[in-house]
Amino acid sequence: MSLPEPVRPEPGAFLLEEIREQPAALRRLLAHEAEFADVAAAARRSGRTLVRLVAHGSSDNAASYGVYAFGLLPGWTALRDSISLTVYSGARLDLTGSCVLALSQSGQTPDVVDYVQRARAAGALTVAVTNDPDSELGQAAEAVLPLAAGPERSIAATKTYSSSVAALALLAAHASGRSREFADGIARVADLIDEALPALEGRVGELAVTFAYVGRMFVIGRGTELPTAREVALKLLETCRVAAEPMTATAFAHGPVAALDALFPVWAVAARDENLAAVAEAVARARAAGAGVVATGSAAAELDATYRLPTPEPPLPLLSPLLSILPGQLFAWALARAKGLDPDRPQRLAKVTLAR
Amino acid sequence: MSLPEPVRPEPGAFLLEEIREQPAALRRLLAHEAEFADVAAAARRSGRTLVRLVAHGSSDNAASYGVYAFGLLPGWTALRDSISLTVYSGARLDLTGSCVLALSQSGQTPDVVDYVQRARAAGALTVAVTNDPDSELGQAAEAVLPLAAGPERSIAATKTYSSSVAALALLAAHASGRSREFADGIARVADLIDEALPALEGRVGELAVTFAYVGRMFVIGRGTELPTAREVALKLLETCRVAAEPMTATAFAHGPVAALDALFPVWAVAARDENLAAVAEAVARARAAGAGVVATGSAAAELDATYRLPTPEPPLPLLSPLLSILPGQLFAWALARAKGLDPDRPQRLAKVTLAR
Repeated sequence: MSLPEPVRPEPGAFLLEEIREQPAALRRLLAHEAEFADVAAAARRSGRTLVRLVAHGSSDNAASYGVYAFGLLPGWTALRDSISLTVYSGARLDLTGSCVLALSQSGQTPDVVDYVQRARAAGALTVAVTNDPDSELGQAAEAVLPLAAGPERSIAATKTYSSSVAALALLAAHASGRSREFADGIARVADLIDEALPALEGRVGELAVTFAYVGRMFVIGRGTELPTAREVALKLLETCRVAAEPMTATAFAHGPVAALDALFPVWAVAARDENLAAVAEAVARARAAGAGVVATGSAAAELDATYRLPTPEPPLPLLSPLLSILPGQLFAWALARAKGLDPDRPQRLAKVTLAR
Repeated sequence: MSLPEPVRPEPGAFLLEEIREQPAALRRLLAHEAEFADVAAAARRSGRTLVRLVAHGSSDNAASYGVYAFGLLPGWTALRDSISLTVYSGARLDLTGSCVLALSQSGQTPDVVDYVQRARAAGALTVAVTNDPDSELGQAAEAVLPLAAGPERSIAATKTYSSSVAALALLAAHASGRSREFADGIARVADLIDEALPALEGRVGELAVTFAYVGRMFVIGRGTELPTAREVALKLLETCRVAAEPMTATAFAHGPVAALDALFPVWAVAARDENLAAVAEAVARARAAGAGVVATGSAAAELDATYRLPTPEPPLPLLSPLLSILPGQLFAWALARAKGLDPDRPQRLAKVTLAR
């Protein structure tokens, strides 16, 4: 007697399921708050407050959020460190005052593991932020912060991205004595995602049809929304084969604006914060160039856009990226399907990237 | 009696002239070595050795070279700091151990000036790297390192980019007691550029015809050649309206490789160094996806590319970017002309960008 063939899910079924699982993943992350408190206390106690973030891909996009979270909460300098400088070129930096946060969903990224081993030997406090605490990365680091997002089966990361962002927010909040406020805020964001998803899922389908033949896009954000712009661009690249390039509103004005025309639309991420004026100016310049603009984020309604996918107001401004990523994730899912691609299995990619 | 109409130069005449002026600009920079020695000594003496680089556009691409120059020579941590974090979001970071290097060709970039004023008040050593020492930026900073590149009339920067890279190399060399070696090396590079340009100028014309209808490209580099990749991509965006996105060889493997096809070529920058294997692997993956590849840099001949534009071996590995940028600058000039665009005056751009 042979077993029945396993049901092959509809293309994109994993991606959509994992986008929807984000609130549950955030709630599971909050169950690990004690570990975040321990790491924050260890960094503060030992004065290792220069935060070096190392990661690739979606984890690196999440890492770029750390620059803002640590800068705005405890006032620590955080940087996305060059992995090649240390691991391949053998630079000898003084790491005694550093806290390394190494982000990897799988915990298997070879040069991130290598970086952590070297940094730990050189006196840094090393912390793995991973969905697999038993991984090589988890074992290499002195401390582990589990993402607890559950298995991610789509090759394009979604819930592990947002849980990585939330993990950095929670750690920075613990480092600055504002843990209660941020834990409550993340819990509230989980509810807001649940409320917002059904309407957004409906909207992205129409938009995807309009964009089915788009070959290139700019994705613009600034400040805490630059990580969102980076992650939206990567989703469009990997699942939809669109040449989507992320940039700040200011970088856009320093050259790329010259490339725009009616076939080169712009995705803008705008929160109601001190960066809104710059993003609005970039959108106005894009429109003047004849480019279509999709405005997303809590301030989407305030932009002169062709299409708007607004997201809920966050309970704390720093948590805005957990909401503003949703339209981009859903749009990538819908556009891939409109193009006849399987967003769960982009060509030439595997879930764990071992390239060095 | 009326004066004759001024002769309007051929489109791209300024850009080509300024590409050719790079050796002369590098020699003029070396005449200011004493100022570089002073700044390096001041940073070392006061222990302000966390290097914060702030800039936009081509100057920001040059700034990214500082990560490698300071990391590999004196072993100092250098980071491209977020301007928005400090200037717009008001983060209060401890800057007492920091040396700020603010790069701006014009010295007028508003938020770079603003950043320097705040950083100086907060106790950082502030240094302007600019082509106009009398500019607002030059006045705001405690010390000025003049680029001495001479007036740059094309909107797309070329000689101020390479002189900014050389300035960072020279400063890092002074900070590490290797000034003689690097000053001699830069002088030798100036000669090598003079020797290499005529043949390269001839080659880019044929290649430009082949690429006249290309709408998107990836530009791949790693380590010290990542700044080169960033700058080549910006030249293609602003002068040729190609959606060119720069990335490391590793980032390429973590997603973007999925987007490639025969209409989506890759520009690779490869030096004969510890990053060559990773760049070669990226090129092989691009070729397997059906993409055409243009290989440039001193190791161009070692890549399995469709086209090769090799550049001379640098006298010191760290100086490689001063040579490997040449094919990209010349190709942008030639491609813009092949497309009927004026590379000296890209649409929607001005020489001095005042966007904040």
